Amino acid sequence: MSTAEPLPARRGRPGYDRDGMLAAAVAVFNEQGYDATSVSALAGRLGVSKAALYHHFSSKEELLGAALDHALDGLEGTLTAPRAGGAAEHLAGVLHDAVIVLAERLPEVTLLLRVRGNSEVERRALDRRRAFDQAVGALVQRAQAEGAVRADVDAAVAARLLFGTVNSLVEWYRPEGPEGAETLARDVVAVALDGLRTR
Amino acid sequence: MSTAEPLPARRGRPGYDRDGMLAAAVAVFNEQGYDATSVSALAGRLGVSKAALYHHFSSKEELLGAALDHALDGLEGTLTAPRAGGAAEHLAGVLHDAVIVLAERLPEVTLLLRVRGNSEVERRALDRRRAFDQAVGALVQRAQAEGAVRADVDAAVAARLLFGTVNSLVEWYRPEGPEGAETLARDVVAVALDGLRTR
Repeated sequence: MSTAEPLPARRGRPGYDRDGMLAAAVAVFNEQGYDATSVSALAGRLGVSKAALYHHFSSKEELLGAALDHALDGLEGTLTAPRAGGAAEHLAGVLHDAVIVLAERLPEVTLLLRVRGNSEVERRALDRRRAFDQAVGALVQRAQAEGAVRADVDAAVAARLLFGTVNSLVEWYRPEGPEGAETLARDVVAVALDGLRTR
Repeated sequence: MSTAEPLPARRGRPGYDRDGMLAAAVAVFNEQGYDATSVSALAGRLGVSKAALYHHFSSKEELLGAALDHALDGLEGTLTAPRAGGAAEHLAGVLHDAVIVLAERLPEVTLLLRVRGNSEVERRALDRRRAFDQAVGALVQRAQAEGAVRADVDAAVAARLLFGTVNSLVEWYRPEGPEGAETLARDVVAVALDGLRTR
């Protein structure tokens, strides 16, 4: 189970543990906007005191940082997972696993994709996103060198298009919907790598 | 040329015509958020009086409606353009032309993709977007029936993935960048329809 779903407060003990508080805060950030949410408003929405919030997190920015780390750790993990095969198979695995990460950490990835670099925490997250995009671009380039991927599309553009497809899922994918994450991951690889047209 | 670029105010006549005022307003909406921009703030940013604004547009919502219409008219036009060939060629043409529309009407399409249905004007735009998506889904389905497009991916999901790829361009495409709109349109068709993998 992802840490993304807000934990229901337990009967008679209206408290959150650290993960539950983080998940609930991320939901509020996505709904109202991170910048527009004050610590007081956040505590109010969570039904806890500011002191209870500060028991787990020293600041609103620490909440943001923890959420972005959770999304980025998952995405970066897709690059380092051991895989058999050449660069094209590696790329297919990265795409597939990135869809799974997005589905399982949907609120955190949604938050990540809205980051614009308004603070040190946001700029660090953007740096990690940029490094991730570059690593995917390098992987496309290796697959091109191996002859497994068409060379008439610029590798960096191809990487952006691939992750444009993946990232666009936050606009409509809902875990409770009919489309399972595994089917969706397979569909993304099928469309983006193998193409929609029959061969 | 698109009406998207803010028209420079002419020397000694600090005025906008209707298109120029619309383009300048859309730029402000994208920068500050439509809901967060008051008519007074908008007039201030444009360096005109509220009366000058109201000379061309009766309300902030009329500005929004005109911008969204401009984006949607362009997208819908990709469906009705006459094309030779079967459904798959039609789909390729729609994708190609949608990238060109996005590149030429980037500020209006950006605004469209942020619409969440907060007013009657926004809900009408969302209805048109939904009808557009359904028409693309129907086109994928026809191409599947013709055997030109793989049938193992749900047509509605395929349509969403295709336009997820197209729409993600607003995140990084810049008209002044090295990637021309025509090359990009070709790349999107190549990756999404024919696949990145060599055949």
